[in-house]
Parts: sequence; C-alpha cells; structure tokens
Amino acid sequence: MSAPRYDVLGIGNAIVDVIARAEDDFLAAQGMHKGGMALIDEARASAIYDAMGPATESSGGSAANTIVGVASFGGRAAFVGKVKDDVLGKAFAHDIRAARVTFDTKPATEGPSTARCYIMVTPDGERTMNTYLGAAQDLKPSDIDEAAVAAAAVVYLEGYLWDPPKAKEAFVKAAEIAHRNNRKVALTLSDSFCVDRYRGEFLDLIRKGTVDIVFANEHELRSLYETADFDSAAKALRGDAKLAVVTRSEKGCVVVTRDGIEAVQAMPIDKVVDVTGAGDLFAAGFLVGHSHGKDHRTSARLGALAAAEVIQHIGARPAVSLKALAAENGLAL
Amino acid sequence: MSAPRYDVLGIGNAIVDVIARAEDDFLAAQGMHKGGMALIDEARASAIYDAMGPATESSGGSAANTIVGVASFGGRAAFVGKVKDDVLGKAFAHDIRAARVTFDTKPATEGPSTARCYIMVTPDGERTMNTYLGAAQDLKPSDIDEAAVAAAAVVYLEGYLWDPPKAKEAFVKAAEIAHRNNRKVALTLSDSFCVDRYRGEFLDLIRKGTVDIVFANEHELRSLYETADFDSAAKALRGDAKLAVVTRSEKGCVVVTRDGIEAVQAMPIDKVVDVTGAGDLFAAGFLVGHSHGKDHRTSARLGALAAAEVIQHIGARPAVSLKALAAENGLAL
Repeated sequence: MSAPRYDVLGIGNAIVDVIARAEDDFLAAQGMHKGGMALIDEARASAIYDAMGPATESSGGSAANTIVGVASFGGRAAFVGKVKDDVLGKAFAHDIRAARVTFDTKPATEGPSTARCYIMVTPDGERTMNTYLGAAQDLKPSDIDEAAVAAAAVVYLEGYLWDPPKAKEAFVKAAEIAHRNNRKVALTLSDSFCVDRYRGEFLDLIRKGTVDIVFANEHELRSLYETADFDSAAKALRGDAKLAVVTRSEKGCVVVTRDGIEAVQAMPIDKVVDVTGAGDLFAAGFLVGHSHGKDHRTSARLGALAAAEVIQHIGARPAVSLKALAAENGLAL
Repeated sequence: MSAPRYDVLGIGNAIVDVIARAEDDFLAAQGMHKGGMALIDEARASAIYDAMGPATESSGGSAANTIVGVASFGGRAAFVGKVKDDVLGKAFAHDIRAARVTFDTKPATEGPSTARCYIMVTPDGERTMNTYLGAAQDLKPSDIDEAAVAAAAVVYLEGYLWDPPKAKEAFVKAAEIAHRNNRKVALTLSDSFCVDRYRGEFLDLIRKGTVDIVFANEHELRSLYETADFDSAAKALRGDAKLAVVTRSEKGCVVVTRDGIEAVQAMPIDKVVDVTGAGDLFAAGFLVGHSHGKDHRTSARLGALAAAEVIQHIGARPAVSLKALAAENGLAL
C-alpha cells in the first residue's frame, strides 16, 4: 500500500443550495416536514421556488460539504459527483475547486440541469430541505476513477447516493476499490427518511464490513434500528459496526467501538443561525483527525468544532479557515 | 396629482452579486482598488471568477438593494432594471418579487447575459466590486413605463446608470415624467470613481433641479467638488442642492438643506462583517421615512438603522424585516 495522495475522497450528490428564511407557517402551508429532506421533481421545484422568499445560492451537497470541510482543515481532499455544464454546475465546480478540492468528474452535457436543494431556514435555525436531483442522477460506475479512489486513505460515501439508481453501483464500486487497496470506507446515513427507504441495505453494508466507519445522528440511528430508545440503538450499533460516531446536536456525540461507547461534548455556542451542514462538517472534522492519526476523542472534538462553526451562519460550508480555528482551539493537526 | 401607488420606484442596473471572502493580498495581486467599483468586460469577469475563492450568489444592484429595503420597511416599492432571461436573470426577478417589489421590466432574450458583480469582502468588512454590466446595458427609454413612474411619490435613480449609454436616456425620461406629475426625483452618486467619470453632468442635474434629493457618501462628495475638505464640500452642496444626505460611515450622516447642515449619529454595532449595501440601505430608510412624512432627522435615523443591519452580515440586502426592526427601535412608521 503506497502512501495516500488524499486524506479523504468523497462521493455524493453534487447540489447547489437555494437558501431562504421562512416561517413555520410556510412549511405547514407547503406540506413540508420540518428538519427533513424531501426528494422533489422539477415541477415541484418550480412551485416551491415561486412560493419561497428571496434566496441566496451557494454550493452544497452533503458529502461535498464534508470534503470542503476536510480541505478547510488543510486535509488533502477530492470529490466525485455529477453536475451539468450549466451556470449552476459551473458555480459548483468553481466553488469546490476554489476550496482546494480535486474535482474531476465530467459534467453532463445533456439531460436534466444541475441538482438544486431548496432550503428553508426557520427562526429557530432548523433547516428543511427539498432536493431536485437533476444531473446528480447521472452519476454512474464509470465516473469512479480507480486510481483516485485507491489513492485516498478514506473513501467517504453519503447514504443519499442510494436515491439515484446508478449512483448506488458507483458507491459499491468505490467501496470495492478502497478495500482492495487496504483503504477505509466511511458512510453517513444522511437522513432518517433516507434510512427508512434503505434500512436493510444500510444494515447489510455495516454488518458485512463494506463500511468501516459509520456517521449518523440520533434520529438516523433510531430509524436504523426502529427504536425510540437511544441507548438500545447505540448498543445494537456497537454489535454491528467497527467504528461509528453518532451526533446528538447540543448533547455532543458518542463514539461507538467494540471497546465501548464514549461521549464527547459539543462546543458551546451563542446562537444557532442555520443548522444546515452540521452533520457534514462534524464528519469533516472527525475524518481529518482520524486520517491524521488522532485518537477518537480528539477527532470528535475536531468534528464538534467544525459543526459549531457552520451552524453560526447561513450556509452549509465553513466561512473561516477550519485549520486556523483548530489551532486557536488547541487542536492543531 | 392623485395619491401615489408607490412610495418609491427605483431605476438601476439589475445585478447578481457573486461574493467571496478575500485577503488584501488578493486585491493587490489582482490590481483591484480596495473599496471601489470597477467596470469589467466578460474576459476579465471570467479571469476574476477563476482566481477568486468559493462564492455565494445573491441578487444585488445598488438601487435594487435600496428598493428591497423600502419594501422591507413596509413601503410600496417598484423597480425598473434589465436582466436577461437566463438563470441569474430569473433569480434576480424571483428575489426582488419575493421581497414584494413590483418588477415588470421585460428581460432581454438575446445579447449579453445578466449583469454580475464580483465582490471581494476583506477581513475588515470592506468590499471591493468588479461589475460586468451585461444585459443591464440594454436598459432603454422604452423600458420606462410612464404610468408607473407617475404613480411613485419618489423616483430613485443611481449614478451608475450613467455607465450604460442608453440607461442615461431612460434616467432623464423618468425624471421628466416624475416632475411633470409633481413627484420627487432622488439620485445617489453611487461611487467616487463614478462621480469622477460624470462630475459635470451630476452637478448639472443637481444645480438645474433635475434631482430633488441627493445621496452621497463623503468620498463621493469630495470627488464631486474636487476637494479634500469635507466642510467646504458640504457647504458647496448646500448651495447647489435642495436636500442632500451625506453618509460618513461610523460618524453618521449630515442632512444638508438650504436651512443648514444637521448631523445625525450612526447606530452603534458590534462588528462590521461586510459593508456592501450600507449606502443603499441608508437611502432606503431615509426615503421610506421621507415618503411617510417623517422629519429629516427621523428619516436619517431610519437610514442609519437599515445600514447598521446590512453591514452586520454578508450580502447587500436585509436579512430581517426592517419594519419589525424599526418598531423595536421606537421608529415605527
């Protein structure tokens, strides 16, 4: 096994976020499930856009946000995801490359437009997402570059990849390449409704060892084991996963290993502005710590630091250098 | 004169802002004049975009920001400006209409793309702008709807309209309609370099009474009278203008009338994040107060309140309801 060229290579849906502030009434009137992610078609996307308030556009996508976080910590990072060669696709490519992430996936030249996620941020800082997958549905196994995956210490995959039909095959191909090259495979469960859609397959991936590191929040964990009780779900996860980290918002997180379950505190903050990207950035911090040989507790603290940064402003990507922020907090890599 | 349908109708360049954080070194390397607005062509726009960091896109344009501010205060507002019917043009139209502004200007179906302003925000909160005018250059006299202008208590025009050749004619047409209907005409001098380009014409507009209300910051005022001395420039303005408001950043503003020069304090704030839109939003507050029959001091305080809100976050448009903010600060309209 040669030295890795990347600390983390992420594969996910390449999405541009369209973010607006909204009141709870708006979510109710639109039949949106607060805090969730709903898949929508183009007609619904158009109807939501017409109804929603003034918006800003910024690059997003769960795994893409994580990878940008890794790069912001100074980690070597690459991303694989499909955009179209339209205005928003060019913006996505610009933003991720400007964040010093290698991004070589060929854009689609025909078919649906670049994916968009319409995000409503309510006054409590919660975000409600509506995703039109568009060109992201075109991600296929041939988009996975074997040499690039083989050169990454960790391949990070989002559960949302189970939604576009061919992306799942790309996911499986990437995991096989990684293990063949003695690299690690990490998975985020993405969303409790996503877990609901693919529970059996996600459990299979974890139990068969296709994934080495699992990221979940407590809602996703409860959905995975179909239980309301956190402790029994965490215990079940301990039996299934080699290493898992479960985030619990302001309660911090727990690191789950065969050795036990260790709690790590969240970073205290003044005010939650927009929780979009909290889980994505937590994963960034943990992965960058892990790939730099830090212990689980230190990696989790790096995750908590990155999550705290991103929820204090609108948008799902860091607004400051996470490398500098880590150094200021005694967590230099 | 019938009762006005709009408190303020604004005419300006319809622009989408592409905003990134940048260090002072970047401005130097790119030969950008910090704090200024440079006009750029498409090739330069492309080069700047390639070089700049991860960006967010949000609707901007000086007069458009002002008009959105007027609407946020609960004022009745309309905007005239030219976009193309492309992705960014549709976003501009969505955002301004979602802010409850009447926007009926027909988009261009051919020619250059929607105007973009590449804005670098440095750590001190200063913004440096590079504007590709694109479709905004297509604004022409036939885009001015006589009935709409006649129905506005105040027509608000940006000095930047002097840059696109036909927009100037549209400006003059709108001012004539307004005065024929006993409405008021307001002008912002926009930028000290813009004043440098059109000093003689701007002085003519003020001295001949084509404009009734002048907005400027101290740099623009000094440029107008080609003097480094604020007091002598203010005195000269007092001789030329019927009513003028000169903003002075943290020093507040002065209201200049034939009766005298009155200073009004700025609103104290914790931290300047991004000064983009400060002047635009000051004008919004002043105009909404003025059109609601408030005295100059109260109008200036409304302006200071709106400017303080917009400089505490990234982006040139208000992030909260200015109507609610005014009420909280004892300035309910």
